[in-house]
Amino acid sequence: METVQELMRGSRRALARLITLVENNDPRKEEIMERLFPHTGKAYLIGITGSPGAGKSSLVDRLLAEARQNGSTVGVIAVDPTSPFTGGAILGDRIRMQEHALDSGIFIRSMGTRGSLGGLSRAAREAVQVMDAFGKDLIIIETVGVGQSEIDIVGTADSTVVVLTPAGGDSVQTIKAGIMEIGDIFVVNKADLGGSERTVAEVSMMLDLKEEPGWRPPVLPVVALRGEGVAALWQALMEHRRYLQSGGLFESRRRERAGRELGELVEFLVKSRVWESIRTQISLDELIEAIALRRQDPYSAARELLRRINFPF
Amino acid sequence: METVQELMRGSRRALARLITLVENNDPRKEEIMERLFPHTGKAYLIGITGSPGAGKSSLVDRLLAEARQNGSTVGVIAVDPTSPFTGGAILGDRIRMQEHALDSGIFIRSMGTRGSLGGLSRAAREAVQVMDAFGKDLIIIETVGVGQSEIDIVGTADSTVVVLTPAGGDSVQTIKAGIMEIGDIFVVNKADLGGSERTVAEVSMMLDLKEEPGWRPPVLPVVALRGEGVAALWQALMEHRRYLQSGGLFESRRRERAGRELGELVEFLVKSRVWESIRTQISLDELIEAIALRRQDPYSAARELLRRINFPF
Repeated sequence: METVQELMRGSRRALARLITLVENNDPRKEEIMERLFPHTGKAYLIGITGSPGAGKSSLVDRLLAEARQNGSTVGVIAVDPTSPFTGGAILGDRIRMQEHALDSGIFIRSMGTRGSLGGLSRAAREAVQVMDAFGKDLIIIETVGVGQSEIDIVGTADSTVVVLTPAGGDSVQTIKAGIMEIGDIFVVNKADLGGSERTVAEVSMMLDLKEEPGWRPPVLPVVALRGEGVAALWQALMEHRRYLQSGGLFESRRRERAGRELGELVEFLVKSRVWESIRTQISLDELIEAIALRRQDPYSAARELLRRINFPF
Repeated sequence: METVQELMRGSRRALARLITLVENNDPRKEEIMERLFPHTGKAYLIGITGSPGAGKSSLVDRLLAEARQNGSTVGVIAVDPTSPFTGGAILGDRIRMQEHALDSGIFIRSMGTRGSLGGLSRAAREAVQVMDAFGKDLIIIETVGVGQSEIDIVGTADSTVVVLTPAGGDSVQTIKAGIMEIGDIFVVNKADLGGSERTVAEVSMMLDLKEEPGWRPPVLPVVALRGEGVAALWQALMEHRRYLQSGGLFESRRRERAGRELGELVEFLVKSRVWESIRTQISLDELIEAIALRRQDPYSAARELLRRINFPF
């Protein structure tokens, strides 16, 4: 594919186009991903998550500046499971792109809902691969950390930053959503607001409760809008990176990720091929009607379907 | 199974035990579900969702009282994707059960995280079936509406209530999470706080923007703690129920649900059988290592796996 060659030669237009192809599940996607794969695995992945309004975008913008000053090229994937009703992702994308339009070391891409969150999560991971093959040193994945799927997206990163605010009860909500477990670094943003010290103390206490050996996530007060504390965040990220690399954790995490990726692809192939086979051989309407009228239970109906397509396992 | 017969005779102990069996994926689960299935489909399902702190539990408690006054028996499934770290679901369960301990027309069950949110969603739907077979007239499914999986759970209900509060920015967050689309009735709880009229107006405006024919979701101010507006909510629920039943929507929604259920069971069977076949024949370690070292791409690796187990599709 020509576009892949252009990507390898450093074309930003090819980068944008390939991400679009991948996002839209273009028939050529598999071929593209296979050709890019040998060139991936070099970028360092940073996940950033937090509630809506925690100030993730401002933080990412400041982190971009910090990374550029330290000589790294950066790709950003901002995942926004916005309802298709609003279409906010695209607008935000354009505004943010304009700010960095003159810096060819930065590439920002937003992604909105694609039918299902599972699809969004897959598209985001594939966009990471494309940026990785393009040669970005760092790739930041930014998501609104409200649901399991978003946590899954960020969970594939090498270092994960959880952004909290001092505003009432936010830290408690975060624990509920299971975000506490995935944070390698915690940021208490808007630290100029009242109550930030208490939030820092609360989160630290919770982290101490877990008593796990190894990396103890730092809890950093930050005022992203003024850039305060962002240099310390950058230092913490580089420290976590060194920690992972020196202890062999970097490799084991990537092996884990490879296993998960293989598993998901197997399931994706299996499901789509089985459905194709069912669709070409059997009309489901009758079976569904029988279930809706409680004439047949869905368990025996599912087994019957697999028998009828001669599913051999 | 004896416990199924006891359930049919109205034993609350059998109800509790069967839900536990189903929740724990007991080997007898499939048999249980098959035997219960012919007795299901009679209960009316109400989904209630909203952000943490919106006051869902208080609202459900008031709605329970209202439903009992109107002669209905009620089952409640409170889905709380709490981190296993806290275990809040069980505690909350006990407290709430005590309040209604003397009323045999009420059965409350909380569910926490079961490994994955997909698993939680399945367990919740199966618990609904058990309560339905037990003979509950109404079943309320209460979830924290923060992620797609929770929306999926509530989305299986006949009538879905979205609970908002006047507190700053909540309505905007809600639209982001895609909750706007699933609400049949909107409740602005804590309506005694300032700003509730504005929230009611904002949500009404958004609903009008959609310009869909048919049911226009009412937006109801409620003070759950004092029981204000709960009778109106009950009326709205009964009206929505009549609307669904008179227009044939009730049947078409249930057919949709049957189709989704069949689809999920087919995929579940297919995936688990394929993995079993892979696990007994192939060691994945080498393949995963090859992917982690970028020697083989995961796409060709997935196809290779399926070839090696002679996957015929």
